[in-house]
Amino acid sequence: MTIPFNKPFIIGDELKYIEEAVKSGKISGDGLFTKKCQNFFEEKYSFPKVLLTTSCTDALEMAAILCDIKEGDEVIVPSYTFVSSANAFALRGAKIVFVDSYSDNPNIDPREIEKHITPKTKVIVPVHYAGVACDMEAIMNLAKQHDIFVVEDAAQAIDSYYTFADGTKKALGSIGHFAAFSFHETKNIIAGEGGMLVVNDEKYFERAEIIREKGTNRSAFFRGEVNKYGWVDLGSSFLPSEIISAFLYAQLENLDKIQSKRIDIWNRYMNGLNDLMEKGDIKLPIIPNYSTNNAHMFYMVCRSYEERTALIKYLKEKDILSVFHYLSLNKSDFFLKNNLEIDIPNSDNFTDSLLRLPFYYELTEKEQNLIIEEIKVFFDA
Amino acid sequence: MTIPFNKPFIIGDELKYIEEAVKSGKISGDGLFTKKCQNFFEEKYSFPKVLLTTSCTDALEMAAILCDIKEGDEVIVPSYTFVSSANAFALRGAKIVFVDSYSDNPNIDPREIEKHITPKTKVIVPVHYAGVACDMEAIMNLAKQHDIFVVEDAAQAIDSYYTFADGTKKALGSIGHFAAFSFHETKNIIAGEGGMLVVNDEKYFERAEIIREKGTNRSAFFRGEVNKYGWVDLGSSFLPSEIISAFLYAQLENLDKIQSKRIDIWNRYMNGLNDLMEKGDIKLPIIPNYSTNNAHMFYMVCRSYEERTALIKYLKEKDILSVFHYLSLNKSDFFLKNNLEIDIPNSDNFTDSLLRLPFYYELTEKEQNLIIEEIKVFFDA
Repeated sequence: MTIPFNKPFIIGDELKYIEEAVKSGKISGDGLFTKKCQNFFEEKYSFPKVLLTTSCTDALEMAAILCDIKEGDEVIVPSYTFVSSANAFALRGAKIVFVDSYSDNPNIDPREIEKHITPKTKVIVPVHYAGVACDMEAIMNLAKQHDIFVVEDAAQAIDSYYTFADGTKKALGSIGHFAAFSFHETKNIIAGEGGMLVVNDEKYFERAEIIREKGTNRSAFFRGEVNKYGWVDLGSSFLPSEIISAFLYAQLENLDKIQSKRIDIWNRYMNGLNDLMEKGDIKLPIIPNYSTNNAHMFYMVCRSYEERTALIKYLKEKDILSVFHYLSLNKSDFFLKNNLEIDIPNSDNFTDSLLRLPFYYELTEKEQNLIIEEIKVFFDA
Repeated sequence: MTIPFNKPFIIGDELKYIEEAVKSGKISGDGLFTKKCQNFFEEKYSFPKVLLTTSCTDALEMAAILCDIKEGDEVIVPSYTFVSSANAFALRGAKIVFVDSYSDNPNIDPREIEKHITPKTKVIVPVHYAGVACDMEAIMNLAKQHDIFVVEDAAQAIDSYYTFADGTKKALGSIGHFAAFSFHETKNIIAGEGGMLVVNDEKYFERAEIIREKGTNRSAFFRGEVNKYGWVDLGSSFLPSEIISAFLYAQLENLDKIQSKRIDIWNRYMNGLNDLMEKGDIKLPIIPNYSTNNAHMFYMVCRSYEERTALIKYLKEKDILSVFHYLSLNKSDFFLKNNLEIDIPNSDNFTDSLLRLPFYYELTEKEQNLIIEEIKVFFDA
């Protein structure tokens, strides 16, 4: 029996709610279950406004339109991230400025951000890697000082928090101007593909709704605020089907159960692999004091590309599927078409050496023990 | 009991297939059911390449990227259409050139297209209104003559065909360079929200896949054609969740059953309202000889805005929900921000006078007879 890297799951009333949605007479976007999901997030995490989208990518694209990105604007993005963090802004004509991570944490380093701010910088995109918070206080201070938007790429960061120096604790996604979350099948809470935009500044609420509704003021029309609705702005169809929202809502009803299980899984990896870390064979995740741990992912960092490749191969022979993650975007073909090659060493190190272990709701203790055991066997050899 | 304008439905194994998708271990995009749907369409309609998307809007946006729309390019679109037909190109910086419909058919009039072609025209977007074919032979001839792309907005046009002068019959969506279809809950085949792009020219297959996969060559990687995948182009996340594709596939298995029922509904309206047409009270749809009828919608055209408003009100009092459709896009706030007001009379007439009657799979003969009866009572009064 292979232990996959990821495994989607049904945990509650997913199918029942889909049937209910159909029977309610509306399965296009913004029906009952979309509203239930949005309300859930707004209440639980004090997000001022939540709009479900078809993907985290789409939520980032909405943010890019809301930031009014124009040809030549600069957007600061970590090099170690998923393509969408950059693509969403590149699509609007932005010049992407890639910066480095910390050496011991894949998150973007605010000191590196500061070095790359110019008068053209319009947005900073902190990506909360593995659900671990970026240093949002430092980033927000930079943004304020230079009058720059902050779009949190919170794809992996559901149910995680940042604590400010004064002790204030805020949910990731509620700190920047906008934030984008994912419900892709690999995330803690899933809908196969899916996402949401969080809008933290009230002055963008109305335009966010319009952009999401194909550039029309349809939402205001249904609330009776305007007499007819029409084309008033750029926009796209960012609304998920109610089939997606119904599935998602059943997952949300079980959020605490899912999170508690995932934290157990995470801790079991951490404890199980601690010896190897102490021996210096591997590095394990660091959770800074200002961040909580949402147990989105468990990764380890090998000493080299070759070692990681050998470990992946070894585990695969044992029917355990472990996977590497991002490739430094500054070395991508698309970036190098228009830019010179630059050196972003920490990102390159994570590109070469970071390994993600199987992690999903139904992963059993027995399977996990086997994975830990095999990793130890590999390093003992 | 109210007769709604539309009503989504479960017809077969929708829920079973969703459960199967989850159990298969993959519900993110491009899983088993997405492939089944794509194969179904490619085989049934001889579409060279089909890519499911999260909406018809998204498929149009993919087409706009594939056409390499740049700031200032002109795109010819009927004024009587959904905002997405224009928005998808406006998002890429195009200047939208709105043209008129025929006087007796909401489809774009090729003579009007010809008048508006300039050296900057890059794309023509024929919208097959109500699933009735635009005059594709005339449009393709114009496009060829001027080296212009044709993107069929086939949102409503599933299972409909065009016959060329030489007798060749081709499915709508297979004639232009690209075509976009919708599976929105109001369409013949539904997934709540959903769509697909058809790519008819082989030379765009690879780039279409890349754009759909966030600008990465991931599809080629999974086919073993490249060693690793990375960021190679602009792109977005256009893939639907397998939850959507599983739902859709169950509908596709019942396509013939759905179509046969819809054609009965359509004919019943046509026959039932024929008297009123002959008396000159209303106009009814015209299906040109070159087009089939896919029974997507039943509309009638009143003599005035006032008469239509009164009829909607009358039917609503009888618990029958009928609805008007598009508002001429050349009169939208967004267009008028950057353009002078122009006169597009036939589009304005359909804006004011076209009325859509309740039309869905589960509409009963009894309900339909009631609707027809009440319309007659209204006009007799």
